[in-house]
Parts: sequence; C-alpha cells; structure tokens
Amino acid sequence: MDYGIHEECGVFGIYGVPDAANLVYYGLHSLQHRGQEGCGIVACGDDGVLRRVKGEGLVQEIFNESKLASLSGSMAIGHVRYSTTGGSCIENVQPFLFRHETGDFALAHNGNIVNSTLLRHYLERRGSLFQSSSDSEILAHLIRKEDNDPHRPRIDAIKEALNMIDGAFAFLIMTRNRIYACRDKHGLRPLSIGRLGEGYVISSETCAMDALGATFVREVNPGEIVTIDYHGLRCSPYSEYSHHFLCAMEYIYFSRPDSDLEGRNVHGFRKESGRLLYEEAPCEADIVVGVPDSSLSAAMGYSEASGIPYEMGLIKNKYVGRTFIQPSQALREKGVRMKLAAVGSIVRHKRVALIDDSIVRGTTSRRIVRMLREAGADEVHLRIASPQITSPCFYGVDMSTYDELLCAHHQDLSVISEKLGADSVAFLSEEALFKAGRRSELCLACFNGRYPTSVYQRIEDANKDLR
Amino acid sequence: MDYGIHEECGVFGIYGVPDAANLVYYGLHSLQHRGQEGCGIVACGDDGVLRRVKGEGLVQEIFNESKLASLSGSMAIGHVRYSTTGGSCIENVQPFLFRHETGDFALAHNGNIVNSTLLRHYLERRGSLFQSSSDSEILAHLIRKEDNDPHRPRIDAIKEALNMIDGAFAFLIMTRNRIYACRDKHGLRPLSIGRLGEGYVISSETCAMDALGATFVREVNPGEIVTIDYHGLRCSPYSEYSHHFLCAMEYIYFSRPDSDLEGRNVHGFRKESGRLLYEEAPCEADIVVGVPDSSLSAAMGYSEASGIPYEMGLIKNKYVGRTFIQPSQALREKGVRMKLAAVGSIVRHKRVALIDDSIVRGTTSRRIVRMLREAGADEVHLRIASPQITSPCFYGVDMSTYDELLCAHHQDLSVISEKLGADSVAFLSEEALFKAGRRSELCLACFNGRYPTSVYQRIEDANKDLR
Amino acid sequence: MDYGIHEECGVFGIYGVPDAANLVYYGLHSLQHRGQEGCGIVACGDDGVLRRVKGEGLVQEIFNESKLASLSGSMAIGHVRYSTTGGSCIENVQPFLFRHETGDFALAHNGNIVNSTLLRHYLERRGSLFQSSSDSEILAHLIRKEDNDPHRPRIDAIKEALNMIDGAFAFLIMTRNRIYACRDKHGLRPLSIGRLGEGYVISSETCAMDALGATFVREVNPGEIVTIDYHGLRCSPYSEYSHHFLCAMEYIYFSRPDSDLEGRNVHGFRKESGRLLYEEAPCEADIVVGVPDSSLSAAMGYSEASGIPYEMGLIKNKYVGRTFIQPSQALREKGVRMKLAAVGSIVRHKRVALIDDSIVRGTTSRRIVRMLREAGADEVHLRIASPQITSPCFYGVDMSTYDELLCAHHQDLSVISEKLGADSVAFLSEEALFKAGRRSELCLACFNGRYPTSVYQRIEDANKDLR
Amino acid sequence: MDYGIHEECGVFGIYGVPDAANLVYYGLHSLQHRGQEGCGIVACGDDGVLRRVKGEGLVQEIFNESKLASLSGSMAIGHVRYSTTGGSCIENVQPFLFRHETGDFALAHNGNIVNSTLLRHYLERRGSLFQSSSDSEILAHLIRKEDNDPHRPRIDAIKEALNMIDGAFAFLIMTRNRIYACRDKHGLRPLSIGRLGEGYVISSETCAMDALGATFVREVNPGEIVTIDYHGLRCSPYSEYSHHFLCAMEYIYFSRPDSDLEGRNVHGFRKESGRLLYEEAPCEADIVVGVPDSSLSAAMGYSEASGIPYEMGLIKNKYVGRTFIQPSQALREKGVRMKLAAVGSIVRHKRVALIDDSIVRGTTSRRIVRMLREAGADEVHLRIASPQITSPCFYGVDMSTYDELLCAHHQDLSVISEKLGADSVAFLSEEALFKAGRRSELCLACFNGRYPTSVYQRIEDANKDLR
Repeated sequence: MDYGIHEECGVFGIYGVPDAANLVYYGLHSLQHRGQEGCGIVACGDDGVLRRVKGEGLVQEIFNESKLASLSGSMAIGHVRYSTTGGSCIENVQPFLFRHETGDFALAHNGNIVNSTLLRHYLERRGSLFQSSSDSEILAHLIRKEDNDPHRPRIDAIKEALNMIDGAFAFLIMTRNRIYACRDKHGLRPLSIGRLGEGYVISSETCAMDALGATFVREVNPGEIVTIDYHGLRCSPYSEYSHHFLCAMEYIYFSRPDSDLEGRNVHGFRKESGRLLYEEAPCEADIVVGVPDSSLSAAMGYSEASGIPYEMGLIKNKYVGRTFIQPSQALREKGVRMKLAAVGSIVRHKRVALIDDSIVRGTTSRRIVRMLREAGADEVHLRIASPQITSPCFYGVDMSTYDELLCAHHQDLSVISEKLGADSVAFLSEEALFKAGRRSELCLACFNGRYPTSVYQRIEDANKDLR
Repeated sequence: MDYGIHEECGVFGIYGVPDAANLVYYGLHSLQHRGQEGCGIVACGDDGVLRRVKGEGLVQEIFNESKLASLSGSMAIGHVRYSTTGGSCIENVQPFLFRHETGDFALAHNGNIVNSTLLRHYLERRGSLFQSSSDSEILAHLIRKEDNDPHRPRIDAIKEALNMIDGAFAFLIMTRNRIYACRDKHGLRPLSIGRLGEGYVISSETCAMDALGATFVREVNPGEIVTIDYHGLRCSPYSEYSHHFLCAMEYIYFSRPDSDLEGRNVHGFRKESGRLLYEEAPCEADIVVGVPDSSLSAAMGYSEASGIPYEMGLIKNKYVGRTFIQPSQALREKGVRMKLAAVGSIVRHKRVALIDDSIVRGTTSRRIVRMLREAGADEVHLRIASPQITSPCFYGVDMSTYDELLCAHHQDLSVISEKLGADSVAFLSEEALFKAGRRSELCLACFNGRYPTSVYQRIEDANKDLR
Repeated sequence: MDYGIHEECGVFGIYGVPDAANLVYYGLHSLQHRGQEGCGIVACGDDGVLRRVKGEGLVQEIFNESKLASLSGSMAIGHVRYSTTGGSCIENVQPFLFRHETGDFALAHNGNIVNSTLLRHYLERRGSLFQSSSDSEILAHLIRKEDNDPHRPRIDAIKEALNMIDGAFAFLIMTRNRIYACRDKHGLRPLSIGRLGEGYVISSETCAMDALGATFVREVNPGEIVTIDYHGLRCSPYSEYSHHFLCAMEYIYFSRPDSDLEGRNVHGFRKESGRLLYEEAPCEADIVVGVPDSSLSAAMGYSEASGIPYEMGLIKNKYVGRTFIQPSQALREKGVRMKLAAVGSIVRHKRVALIDDSIVRGTTSRRIVRMLREAGADEVHLRIASPQITSPCFYGVDMSTYDELLCAHHQDLSVISEKLGADSVAFLSEEALFKAGRRSELCLACFNGRYPTSVYQRIEDANKDLR
Repeated sequence: MDYGIHEECGVFGIYGVPDAANLVYYGLHSLQHRGQEGCGIVACGDDGVLRRVKGEGLVQEIFNESKLASLSGSMAIGHVRYSTTGGSCIENVQPFLFRHETGDFALAHNGNIVNSTLLRHYLERRGSLFQSSSDSEILAHLIRKEDNDPHRPRIDAIKEALNMIDGAFAFLIMTRNRIYACRDKHGLRPLSIGRLGEGYVISSETCAMDALGATFVREVNPGEIVTIDYHGLRCSPYSEYSHHFLCAMEYIYFSRPDSDLEGRNVHGFRKESGRLLYEEAPCEADIVVGVPDSSLSAAMGYSEASGIPYEMGLIKNKYVGRTFIQPSQALREKGVRMKLAAVGSIVRHKRVALIDDSIVRGTTSRRIVRMLREAGADEVHLRIASPQITSPCFYGVDMSTYDELLCAHHQDLSVISEKLGADSVAFLSEEALFKAGRRSELCLACFNGRYPTSVYQRIEDANKDLR
C-alpha cells in the first residue's frame, strides 16, 4: 500500500456502562489504525458535567490512569484522528465540546463534508465563530441555529442540520442525557451498534466491539439517526434516500481484517479479492509476496488460488514509532532500509508475484520493486488487489492530490509497469470488488470518478485544502 | 502574603519586529509571576496565517526552539494564565483563536467581566456556541455579532462590543493586519505600550518591556483602544468615562517590584508603604522580618523608618516547582516545613516585627506566626502593609470566597490578633496607599466594598463560580 | 507463543565508518525484538574518548538527534536488553563502560554465564567491586585481573578470561583502538560479521546488517575471538572445542524471520518446521490459524503441506506499547481482549488447526484455545512447531521457572490436551528441528535436558535468581 | 556573585525513621542549592536490600511518588550534584552503589580528593575497575582493598582508607546495618548530625534538618567517623590532626542563609561582613544595591552600617529553569536581559554602592556594572564582601581555571576598577572574615594560596581536569 493514503478517523461511544471512559479507551485503542495523530474522550459524569481529555499522539500516550479516572460516568464518546504533517494542531483534535446554557454537548466525526465551504460561509454570516479549521465543527453550529425554540425536541434540530450537510460522515453527538449516532444517507462511512451488558456500544468498526466482548446488534443505516438513552435504542430516518455506497477502500485498506463491514469480514473480502486477482491476472512466479500489513490477506488468496507458495519476502519493522529518527537521504542512498526490508535469502533468484492492495502515487511500489531486485529477485510481477485509482476522494480519504495520482485518467499498463520498474503489472476489476464484497453497491468514485454526491469543487483542487 | 489570593493573567504583544514570537516568549517569561497555570502565543506569519502554540505549564515548559520556530512572523500576542486547581483545562488557555472567512483573529485577556452571565445568555440565545468556560471568549462573540456589515470598519464593532462588557480588562486582539489593545474604562488592570526598534510592545507590566530593552511610551488610558498597524500607533477612546481606578493590589502584591505602574515604581510604593506603616503602627521590636518574596520591600521600609534592623528571619525554598511532592499532613504535623522556614538562630529570643503585604484568609499568617514562635521568637508583632480585606473582588483576583475572608465586615484588631496568635496586629490606612502611590484614585473595593462598577451578583456569591 | 519466554539481549557494533553511533542506532532498532527494556551505545571519538548514552526504554525513546550527535567517532558498540519486571534498573543497562588508566573500555553481552557465582566470589575475594547485579560485568573484572603485565598483549588477557567463563555468550569489547567480538565455544548465541563500505559490522542477527545495506561476511565461530582494527579483521581461536550447539529457540522463536542463522533463513526454518509438523501430526481441520507473530511462518508451512487454507483467525493489536494500560482482571473476565483477538466471522463453525511455536507455561495457549471456542470454533487442534519444553534454560532464555513448565518431565499428550482445553495436541520431534535447520547440532537442552555445559546449579533453582 | 563558581555537592542521610527515603527527598530538596545537575537516593529495605533511584535533574524532577515508594526502609542516604557542562553523565551521579557478597554498600561524597590520581593509579595496578570518572569512587575501592580479613571490623578498613586519602570531604557510607559519617581532618566541608524522633539525621547543612523539624545535635568533627546503628551514635577519631579549616566560601557564598555552620548563622556572617565592609571601605552613595540572591545579606549590613538606604536596584527572574531558552547573542546585544535586570526607576540618577559577595572571573560583575549604568546610575562603587580570589581551589569548588581569575596574583584596585568599568572597587580583609565568623581558623586558600593540604598538582593546572 502506498503511504500516500490515509483514513481520517474513528469514533467510539459507550452508553449505560459504569466507567464508560475506560471502555472507550480500549475501544479507541482497537481503532488506532484509523488515526494516530490525536485522540480524545468526553465523558458525562453522574453530575451531568461533560469532561474532556484530548491530545496529540496515540491513545496510550494521551491517557494514563489518573486522566481516565477524571472522566467518570457511564456515558462517553471518543475519537482517533489520523496523522498528517503540518496542518495538525490541538484545536482540531476531537471530540469537540460546546458549552451552552441549555446543556453542554460533545461531537465526534469520521468523514468529510463536501459542502462545508458554503455552510461555513452561511453560518459566519449569521454570526457563528469557528475555533478550528475542521469541517466537523459545522454540524454543531448548524444544530444551534436550528435549536432556538425551547419547546421543540432537539432531535428535530439535529435532523434539519443533518439534511443541510452533504458528504460522508459518521457522527456521534453526546448531551448530558443521550448519545445520537448519525450516518450519512449514502452510507459512505461505517458505523455499528452493539450491546454490552446493560448498555450499548457504537463504533466505526466491529473489531472494537469484539475487543470489549460486546455483541453486534446492527449497523446504523444510511440516512438514519439512532438515539440511545434511558429509554433504550430508538431509530428514525432523517432522509428517504436509500443506497449503501460504502467506501470500497474500507474493505481494501482501512479497516482491520477482523472487522465485519455490513456483514462481510474484511480479511475474507481481501483474501477473496486475491483469489479473483489470480483468476483475472495470473502470472508465472516462484513465490507470492504481500506488502505488509494490509496486503497479506490478498496475497494469501493469490497464493491459494495459484498454488504458488506464499513467502515472507518483505518484512516490516514493527517498532517504528513517532520518535524514530528516519534515516537521512544520504543513509538511504547507501542502502539503509528501516521500515520495510526485502529478505535476500527468500527472494534471491526467484520470480516474485508481488501483491499490493492499491497504488496511489506509486512511490512506495517503485521502491519495493527496486528493493526486491536488489535483494536478488529475478522477476517482479506486481498485482494490485483493486482497480486503478483515477480520481481524488472527497469523502475523507487523504490521497495525494489529483496531479500526483499515478493512474490519473487511467493509464496504460505498460506505462505503469515501466514507471514502477516491474516486469508486469495488473489491477483487479470493479466487478471483482462487488463479488468479493458479496454486494451490489459500493462507492468506487476514486476508481471511476462516479461520485455519489455533488462535489461543490473542481476535481483538480481535491485534497489540496484538506492538508 | 496569604496564598489564598491570585492574579488572573498577563498579556504581551509585539508588532513590527522580526521573529516576534521569540520576543513574546521572553516577555511572557518576565510576566510569569502573573500566572503559572498555562500560556500560549499566537503569531501572524508573513503569509497572513495565524498560528498558535499553547499548553498547561510554565513558559519554559510549553515552548522549545522548534515550537517557537513554527511561529514565524513579525506580529504576535501571548498570554500567561494563573494556576488554580480543578477548573483548569486546555480549552481555557489563551490566546483564543477564531477562524473566520473575513479573517482569523486572536484574543488575549487579563481581568474579569462582571456581566458575563447576562452577555453569555444573550449571545447563546442568538446562536453563539462557546467552547470554553472562560468569560474571555465573550468579547469575541460580541464583536462578531456587531460585525455584520462588511462596509463598516471592524474597530467600530470592537468599540460597541467593549461598551457592552463591564468589568476589569486588558484585551489584546490580533488580526492579520493589526493589534488592538483595549483597557477597561475604570483602568482597573494595567496595560502599557513601548517602542522596540521599528516596532511596538504592549505589556501588562513594564518589567517585561525593560527585559527586552524596549522604551516605555505610555500607558493605554482607561476607556481607550490603541490600534497598532503599518500606519503606526493610533488611539481613540471608546468611552467618555474618565477615572484611574487601578487595582491597589497590583501595587501591593501582584506586580513585579521592578515594574512601574502609572508612573510609580512598585518597589518604591511598597517601601514607602512600609515607612508609612511604621508611622501609623510602630512597635517595640528587635528585628524586622518580611514574608518573602512580596513583602520584602515593605519590610525594608519599616526597618529604615524605625531603625530596627532588617533580618532574614524567614526563608523560602526557591526550588519548589509544579512536580514537587508536598509533604503529607502527617509529615507537616511532625514539623516538616518546605516552602517557608523560620531561621532559629536569627529569631531566637527576639521580639519580631513581622511585615506582610496583606491578609486574606489568615491561614498562612497564623502558620508563620506559629513557626516564628517555635523557632524561639519572644514576641511577634504583625504589621500588614495594606488595610483589612473586607470584601470580595469581582475584577479578576481570585481571593478566597467571602465567607473565608478573615476580616469580612471589618474585624476588631484584638480579635484578629488572637486568631492569628500574634502579640499585636495592625493594618495600613487607605490614605497611606494613596500617599505611597502618589495618586488620588485607586480601586480599594476589597478594602472598603466601594466597587467602581455594577456588581450583577450577590456579594455573598463572589468568587464561588470562578473556581 | 507463550509470553513466559524472553530472549536476553542483542549486540551490535560498527568499526571504521564515520558517525558509527548513527548506524548502531539503526542496527539496534533492527534488533529491538531481542530486548525492549533498555539500550545503550558507547562510541569512541576521534579524540580516543569513549562516550556513552543509555537508558530504560526502546531505542527510539532513549536516543534523539542531539544525543546521537554527542556520540561522535567511527567506532561504536550497542546493546538492547529485554524487559523484565522488578529486577531491571539503569545500572544493568549495557554497554558497561570501565575507566582505566591504561585505556577505557566498553563491553556488551548477549547470553548467560553459568559459573558466574563462583567467579564473582573469586573476584570479590581478590578485591573486585561490582556495581551491577548483571553477570556480564564479570568478564571485565576477569580481564583486568589477567591484564597486569603491561608488556603482554591485551588479547592474551581476554583469551584467558574467556576460558574461565562457562556458558552462552556473544561479547563485544571496545577499546580506543579496536573491537573484539567473542563467541562462546559451544556456539550457543549467534554473532555475525559483515562489511559496510570500508568498515565492518558485527551483529547478533543478520537482519540488522541487511537493514544497513552491509554484506554478510561470516559468523564468528564458536570459541573464536575476532579482532577488528586498523589492520582489518584478524581471527584466532581461544578454545579448541568445536561444536555448533546454536540455541534452537533462536530458530523457533527469537530471531527475526528475515535473519539467516548459520546459513539457514529463519522464516525458511519455520515454514519447513510447519510442513514437517503436518507430516508428523496431521489433523482434520477446515482452517489453519497461526498465533501471531512468531508462529505465522510455521502455520503457512502447515497450510501448504496440508492443503488446508490459512486464515487470519487471530489478530494482534500492533499498537500495544509500554504505556498501554492493561485491562483489569474484572474487565478481562467481562471479555475485554486487547493484545490478541479471535475473529468470529472467520473461525465460527470451523475446525481449527492452531499452530504455535512452543509452549512454556501453557497459560497463553489455554487462553487462545478458549478465545477460539468463544468465537465459535467447533474444534481446536493445537499443533506445536517444537518439542515439549521439559527443562529450564541456563543460557540466557528467561523461561518460567522449572515448576511452572507445563511439560516438565515430559507430559502425556492427553493430559496436556485436557489442561489446555484443546481437542488434540501434538508436538514436533527433535529430528524435525535438525531437518528444518539442515544441520546436525543444536542446543536442545530445554527439550531434552542435555546441557552442553556444566550447570553449577540445581535444575530446580533454574531461572529463579535471574529475575 | 560571579557565575563561574560552583559548590560540588550536598549529602543527606536518615537512620531509624520509617519511610526514610521520603525524608531524604525533603532533605535533598533543602540542599538543592548545593547542586542541580543530578541527584539520587539509596534506601535500605527491611529485607536488607539496598535500592537506588538516581537521575540527572532537580530532586523534584527525578523523584515521583511511585519511585519514592520503591525505596522502602528506615535508613537511606542521598546526594545532590552540581551542574557543569559537558562532563556530566549518569554514571557520576551519586550515591554510588556497590554489590558485594559480604554485603552491598552505598556511598555519597561532598568534596574533592587531592591525591586521587595517585590513589587511582595504585588501585588500578592492583586490579580495581572504575566505572565513573568521579574521584568519589576511590574510597570504595580503598575500603575493599583493606577489607580482606573477614574477622576484622569493617570500620577499621574504613579508617585506614580515610587515612590514605587527602583533601576535602564529607562522606556518607551506608551498609545494610549502619551509616558511617566521615569528615576530612581539616574540616573543610561541613557535616552535621541531628535527632529526629527516635532516629538520626546527617546533613551537609543544618537548614535541611530544620526543614524536617529535626534537632541539631552537633557537627561531625574534623578527622572523626561517626557510626549510627541500632546501638545509637558512636564516635571515634581516625586522625589526631586537629584544625577547623572550614572553607570560607561556605559562609560567603555556598550555604543557605538559614544554615548554621559551626555555631555561626550564615546570614549573620554575611550581614556582619557587610557591616565590616563599610567600615573598611566606605563610599559616598545614594543607595545600596546587592546582587541577588547571595549578596543580599551583605548588602543589608552595608546599608545598616552606612545609613544609606537599601534598594532593590537589581532583580532576578525566579522562573529561569533548565529548559529556559537563553536569549541569543544577537538578542542580548539588542538589550534582552533575562536572568538579572537593573531597575531604571530605582537607580536612575543615583550613586550606587553595589555589593557582591566575591569576584571570580569578573564577567558577571562587568555586565552588572554596565547594566546599572545603562539604567541611568550616575556612579557605581563596587564593594566585595570577601578578599581578592588569587588562587584556585583544590577542595571541590569549581572556580574558573587559574588563568581566568580576575585577581590572579593579587591585582591593583585601580586596574580591577577599570576592567570592570566601576567608579571604585574595594575588597574585604581576611581579618574581617574571622571577625564575622567569630572564629580563628578558616580555609582561605583561594584568597592567599595557603593550602591546608598538600596539593599534588601544579597550581596552574588547577580545575582543568575537574570539568
């Protein structure tokens, strides 16, 4: 997987379990792969006060026992945020917390709002003051604008606000009494509900529920708002639109292999995609090698379908952390390889079928191909377990900008092969993704440019202002 | 000095000097005595982007060279915040930074707004969303509400907003083009302007200007707003009210001895108050002892006026920091004294004139008197270089609550003396404060209950919700 | 793999390359799996001064750029130390550094000296003062005792000292002129030499050489001392004994899969052991599942040999670090699983062939079997890619104590199976290890109690005083 | 005080009080002024095991509650070490801890051994291995060499070892049964004993005893070894030599004003020295200003004797800590003053009598004189409350090297005055020091070159290898 792609976030909430913040800690830890830049938890104490701890870093770096102890109460929501360079800062770390005389509330968001510029303009004209550069703050201001009549249920204000925003989102909103879980009407970002003892769990991925011993109940439906409070679980749609355009990249790259997305296990999807990849694009090879960690399932599938043995031809150093000093350019040129290494005694004199999940800019793929050759591989046949990425994403995936996409406007395989220095290259078809996912709808916008929402922006500018 | 009293903050700004944030770092360091809880700097880069670093801790703990380097540009403002327990959190650390399509702006505040509850209610009814529990956020929302007409100068909106708030304040507001420095119409909190090379400095106290080698120009007048931009310095009043009710506690306790407040040096004031204290309340003693650090100047004055030698009968451990483990109650009862120690070989068999600057709850005074007696002092005559504190402060001084004030409603000297275990007690007169300050106006509300503003609150509730 | 087993250390050295400490940093980072408790580097500056940085934590936590910059010079050695609880402290973190008028020297050690008690007694009687509780300090004192004649080459003193110690070791000794690399005469611990530009690399494992782009030259032979200085590489035996009893656990568990140990790739060994395991102990299963990370290669081998598909039925959270708050017993009982999780949608209604590399206490195996059943597995057939561990190790492997070994004195398979809750259990034969390693000698003491050295201790006490 | 001078250390011990390490923490905190580079505590648990925590930094930075809790037991010794640049490292931080089969022991040292080179040579020839570059390690090796006969009391070995070392020292040695407190036969470094409940306290200065509520018993005599164990306190001389050459700098600069040294309070000494300074060297001035903090007492004495008012003309920023970013040279040239500031409104148009305690290199004095002039002082008359420092110290005071001493070989006052830019300069006489100390013996070697011990070194080389 090309390192130019990143998921934006993960959200997690607990209702009705003592020391909820403790469990949110473990839930966020299980969602850590969705974001390593920052994280936070807001808990609602038995006194009705919302308290927050947040910071920049991993879950285990931000929280310690005394900080968790300060977050008392049986209701809490949390957030992990992905790591970028530069634009990150403490004010963008969620959950956001708003102080208001009618009751404080907190908000956590995974996804991206495509009409944020318009809405921000509208809100600022009406006197709203923003304190972050994150589009996630918009929903809170919208709700406040719609929430002026004290005799009207707050959920109506939330529904109106949700109908004003367009894009990809899973929102958790916590007041002193309840948690609202909302998912965009296209179903672009995942959000699931589980049962934990007498209480409830809400999570971006099911792996975090499993980790807590919770039982999966169901997914929040596209266009639905689920309210959890002392009445239990209540669901109501805020939109009549009904599609399930789940982001295909959740299957291909972001989600943890042990998560189930809309009934399909992620590892299962990936292994099947590897099998289909061999059917569509076989090759003559002595060994199958996957790029760790996200491509291992696909590589196993390719190996099983082909009968070519799977070997650990690439190895990743699992201790690389934030404080690791990256080798200088001079050292890299002298052959210092830290993150990823090719194993000479495995790949030497071998024809390698190299399986990767996707190609964004191609920089990493090119480096890996070269590494394998330097380690003695005779041939390198690159097989990608997804179609060509031809178009930018507007829904919260921080790909490189349009101009940097290796396959922008779809490229000829021989051109790609040459650019990457591989002996051959092949991609998976879109049909195979539907087959592997056992479903008929997926958001494939980055592969085919068919966006399920309006875009409000020139494609050429995509991702430029997200960073 | 009783440890139950705390200043709220200090503000500092630089306009028109390269690497302004660097200088703000040194300025805040010189104002560190005004607040140790948290601090922050917002700098405006040459690209017009406002960038912020803030955190909980001392200036030297929050900033390092790489963080300062990230704050490029020739304009910056900063803030130090005082240390409370409990209510503190990162969202209350200033400067606040607001993102707005008409231009981001930053805000730093020293003081306290007395009609904040009313204004917050008003603003929230009109859709404002607050993200901190600090009253300092109110001004920003007010400005936005008044700033709807794009053809009207922003300064008009600021003036209107300033006229809506009542209380004590020194505000710095920074946009991408200029810094506004505003002072409340009563002049309760100090704010001075200086010249540094081609640029300008604004600071709560002059000591921070001196530290940078800047030249004092003048104070911001009560009810005045000073604009600093590429045109230079422009001043305009926003209120016709004209008094100089500078908080007397700034002279007595808060400010650094090397600062000048409205033309009067603070050490000079204190020493003079010590002289006058001897005139008003002489005593028979062998040595004069001051409570370090804030009462040393007054003690010297008392010594000089009386001819009684000044001795270092109390000593303060200067290494006590945030991570110091305070002795347990059990150890304190066994005589472990860490912060402050009485020097046996100096006070033994001596009649001590003990000079302190003020008494709030009396807890510390009682402890010091006992400490001196245990160290062998024969007599302890307590002389306080300010009048009895009878009333709570609404202007940003976190005294104990009303009920805890030792001298609430004015007490009889013999009663106080007995409570503190001293052989005699005396206080300075209000007249002496005017004389020491060489001025005719001061805010003496905590001494006599005459508040220069409306109070909007029952006196009995004062300070309760500040903590 | 049972978490009750730990390697003791890794050593790494560089001779004749500018900024050697920088490269040692990367080398140690590649050996991080051999020890996470502490680490250190000693570099010899061009001024002949040996400088050290060491600390408790990961390589990336202890070193930053300024610390590395302080370690100038073209010669350096380093050490990583494994993590225990309690007995660890900064004085046991290596390299040790000795100051001596005939020239300072540094020492790093991987392994365990079995006659340390005797030698320590002997040395203390002769006036030696020890500053750590580590047995690695002994060699330094022995060398000094034998190094009294200034006209005799130091290497003779080192050889005599090496002949006095018995046990498992790879020692690096650095003086201001040269590095000595010594390996025990049984060859229990690995140590390899490589070429890097004009200089040399010495490393516990070849993976760390590969990471630097160095070329493997050869292993240090058992009973050999290799001297690297401005003359180049010189080798001389210090013992005529000639066996190659490399610790089998290096292949089975400790070493990184991309390392080659005496000509055999570790991943290759493990995969082959998995194949042989199927031959020796086949089972009826629907899926093969390996315990991550060390058993994955064996599981792949088992899958390939059997044709049973390999699935990711267990998943490990890769973000668990030192500051992670482990779930309380109460939470664990409620089903909170953090380190390792069984994937329900993969194992449900499946017969699982569970592959692990070894069993020490059995605690983890029991937990994993239960986890798989709770996740819905119909049957769990445990296949261990090594023989029963019946005896404690005296050579630097911190297994549980003798009494805690699940298979102490060899156990009946049905007993083990019942204890672990598995449907069946089987172990690999010793013969298969030789076959997988393509060699005829290995230390198998923990499997069969045949120790290559004297033991100097009652077996029952083994490992008790190491912790 | 010139910043080119530093004390080396402070030692502190507790015997027979539960949780002794806790009290040592507070004791070391009270001795923090004697060393800020590093600190450590060794405690002897009820199980007879000596445990240590040490590190580089202030007492409050190195210890937290869990670390103190790990140091259980009713006997403990500690050490603070002063801050140098470069040569500092963790292995030189004390107490040292030696592991030995006849019983571990710990050692803490304040002072300097003048024949260390000879002794180290002797010990290394006999096989000793040193692990630090500190001369304090020598005593431990000497004791071991003399401690070979198991039937002979260890105290005899200690006495013999003490008679072999020459120089200035206060040593604490702790075994599992007792603490030995030893002081050099000249009495150069201070060491006092106190009573605390049922137990004992030993401290470099009495201020640390007072802080714990302990009662002063007596000083350890020069050439005496005091043993504290379950028998109580036993004293025995190890040398018949009998002088009291206490280092005069302890009175003048190092010790805390509230300490008593051999019956004389330090503040009392300094104030008296200020009085005598006025008698010996009066001047015409409007105000007296002392250099904070160590010269304030002398300045008060000068003020009282002269009748010239004492003013706070210089102020020190008390928040300057280790992580403070010092202003760059460029900023300093532009007038940025952080550590120390002259107060314009106090010194302007004044003739200043500037009191400092001593002059080493003169750099700081020159800077202060200039600062006062720039702040508007008309005249600056520098009065030094000690004689000219003409000779280096060999007893643990890290002055600048000989060549850097401003007054090396005694200088003419007019020359000094010109070099420092002062209007006049005068020093105190040696006689005045005896008078202020109310004693007839003091080590004045740095003033007159009369060293109480042999020197073993060329004076020209003094202090060169200490750093």
